[in-house]
Amino acid sequence: MLDVIRSLVIPGTSKIVLLSLDGLGGLPRPETGRSELETARLPNLSALAAEAACGLIRHVAPGITPGSGPGHLGLFGYDPLAYQVGRGVLEALGIEFDLRGGDVAARGNFCTVDAQGRITDRRAGRIPTEVCVKLTDRLRSIRLPGVEVLVEPVQEHRFVLVLRGAGLSGRLSETDPQALGTPPLPVRALEPAAAHTAELVNAFVEEARKRLTDAAPANMVLLRGFDRLPELPRFPDVYGLRAAAIAAYPMYRGLAKLVGMDVIKTGKTYAEEIATLREHWQAYDFFFVHYKDTDKAGEDGKFDAKVEALERFDGFVPAVRDLGPDVLVVSGDHATPSILAAHGWQPVPVLLWSRYCGADPVTAFTERACAAGTLGTLPAHHLMPLVLANALRLTKFGA
Amino acid sequence: MLDVIRSLVIPGTSKIVLLSLDGLGGLPRPETGRSELETARLPNLSALAAEAACGLIRHVAPGITPGSGPGHLGLFGYDPLAYQVGRGVLEALGIEFDLRGGDVAARGNFCTVDAQGRITDRRAGRIPTEVCVKLTDRLRSIRLPGVEVLVEPVQEHRFVLVLRGAGLSGRLSETDPQALGTPPLPVRALEPAAAHTAELVNAFVEEARKRLTDAAPANMVLLRGFDRLPELPRFPDVYGLRAAAIAAYPMYRGLAKLVGMDVIKTGKTYAEEIATLREHWQAYDFFFVHYKDTDKAGEDGKFDAKVEALERFDGFVPAVRDLGPDVLVVSGDHATPSILAAHGWQPVPVLLWSRYCGADPVTAFTERACAAGTLGTLPAHHLMPLVLANALRLTKFGA
Repeated sequence: MLDVIRSLVIPGTSKIVLLSLDGLGGLPRPETGRSELETARLPNLSALAAEAACGLIRHVAPGITPGSGPGHLGLFGYDPLAYQVGRGVLEALGIEFDLRGGDVAARGNFCTVDAQGRITDRRAGRIPTEVCVKLTDRLRSIRLPGVEVLVEPVQEHRFVLVLRGAGLSGRLSETDPQALGTPPLPVRALEPAAAHTAELVNAFVEEARKRLTDAAPANMVLLRGFDRLPELPRFPDVYGLRAAAIAAYPMYRGLAKLVGMDVIKTGKTYAEEIATLREHWQAYDFFFVHYKDTDKAGEDGKFDAKVEALERFDGFVPAVRDLGPDVLVVSGDHATPSILAAHGWQPVPVLLWSRYCGADPVTAFTERACAAGTLGTLPAHHLMPLVLANALRLTKFGA
Repeated sequence: MLDVIRSLVIPGTSKIVLLSLDGLGGLPRPETGRSELETARLPNLSALAAEAACGLIRHVAPGITPGSGPGHLGLFGYDPLAYQVGRGVLEALGIEFDLRGGDVAARGNFCTVDAQGRITDRRAGRIPTEVCVKLTDRLRSIRLPGVEVLVEPVQEHRFVLVLRGAGLSGRLSETDPQALGTPPLPVRALEPAAAHTAELVNAFVEEARKRLTDAAPANMVLLRGFDRLPELPRFPDVYGLRAAAIAAYPMYRGLAKLVGMDVIKTGKTYAEEIATLREHWQAYDFFFVHYKDTDKAGEDGKFDAKVEALERFDGFVPAVRDLGPDVLVVSGDHATPSILAAHGWQPVPVLLWSRYCGADPVTAFTERACAAGTLGTLPAHHLMPLVLANALRLTKFGA
């Protein structure tokens, strides 16, 4: 489908803004029967919904709860079932590591082993991040034949290992036995083509062990979530857009970078993100702007905090509209209902405003109201083609 | 998709009940403009609908009327177009024959042939079932090289033939010429891989002819609807559920067994089925409970009887809710509109209740009301992932 879209793209000068509220969707609080969106006072979003086409988007499939990776790939127009991103890759993206196509990434833990090499603490007593930084320096000096070894600290006992080179595979078993009293497991190839990568990883672990003998409690490593970075079609190439990402959190910058968007430097607050949007308005055609507070409150199970986060977001809508976008989309990467205190599988409200979006009866930006919108319930990756069409950037199919 | 679901399943203690009303959906009676569901007094289903997420499910594809096999496979989460079950297999399931993967089954008829072997009665004068039982005993003694020959009486002139062995194919033509005055046709292979099976079946027919020469009017057999039992992923394995089926009719027990559910012994009435549900509440995580009366009334074209069947069902809803299921689903395997007096292609109402189902505006369990529900109109096989999600038995996709 991306190839079809690519073949229909025509140049244009229209401006597109995608405002993504992380964990946007919610569920009714039993006491009131109203969801976070239904509880919040959202005058600007309601007014926008009244002028927009509304609906619900589903990022993966019915009943499937999206992680942040699949949630964003869906928003960016990639079918998350066709482009799967593993946990090692996500950990690397979370620290904005510059992953390249073909790289194999793993989540690493420093751990403690006894004199017989048996694990006594899988997290090395959660060493301070400064110690982690020093020890990853030691690991960086490890050399393996034919590949580059990249090691980056994350936080406390966690680090990222990346192997870069030709012909690597991420289909590897984990070294973490998820239990104490036994030594780390050797990595096994889960497909024949992974045999060489498995040898390299086992050599790395052996070298790491030698370099860490005097570093107790962090005297060994565990590796999990091996994955190869999928070769994703580049967003700017597929859609013919100069695309910019504005996000205060590294994970979302990493995901945008993964599809080839320009990641613009911004501050830590949403006000700073909106200022960044304004400053770069002329330089790009497409802006992905990420809002984190809704997800944070939802994950913490704080219904009222999520309501407040929605109301704060609502206050920024006029500033975005003042820029005069041709297409304005408001949606999210997944639901985070406060009563679940976790990501949810529920479809997420979406509104799409443009001069050509068509009328629909929805006048409130809520789960229930959007369910009756003219966009219906659609896979998230069907949104980008609709966005491009509304930006008059697609020619007809079959002349 | 089943593999994706399987990879996300996590253990849990939640209880799921799927109440299936056979032939649930209907159509308005022209005199009143109201369907069976819209005519019936259903206080308990209405109350449940008001708390649940509602929608319509489509079991095969738009405009396609599901038979009982595809209808139930859809409910159980299997795409009926990907897992096709032929008529011979369904006939075997209808008598609860213990079919195994790779078995080839056919519907058999005893018929009457004249001295020249030409068919004079395709149903052998509808011989009594006792005669059928005796004659199938004779056919059971037939031996074929390399396969087991299994023959079971059904009713009157009808029986089931099953061949069990390696490398069999169900892609065979039928022996019934659907006409009088001509001899039965030899079986032909409809694909090269079926050549050997065709030889075996033709040898069976020849042996049957010899064993039945003195059994007029049932002095020959006709075979139709050859099919191989598909290798279906097992429901308890895919979904990580201890799954039980409670059904008074053998066909539905057979379909549940086909996907690996435990079939629990029960009585002939729905009251007995509900008592069975209560007795086995602790032993299982998932219960499929089948209600037949709605379909029977619909097939007979009896609108009022179908209304009464719906009202009787409604009376059992409180007893099910009293058990305290975490997820309660009410739906059906296909529509049987009374004005059609047959299965219909119309999508079927569904309601899904759980603590996390989300609010929707639907307050009545009818075709028209459910069309406006937040579940929308969805393929029936998308229901099981939603059910698992609501039972908190799926982890997120892509961390």
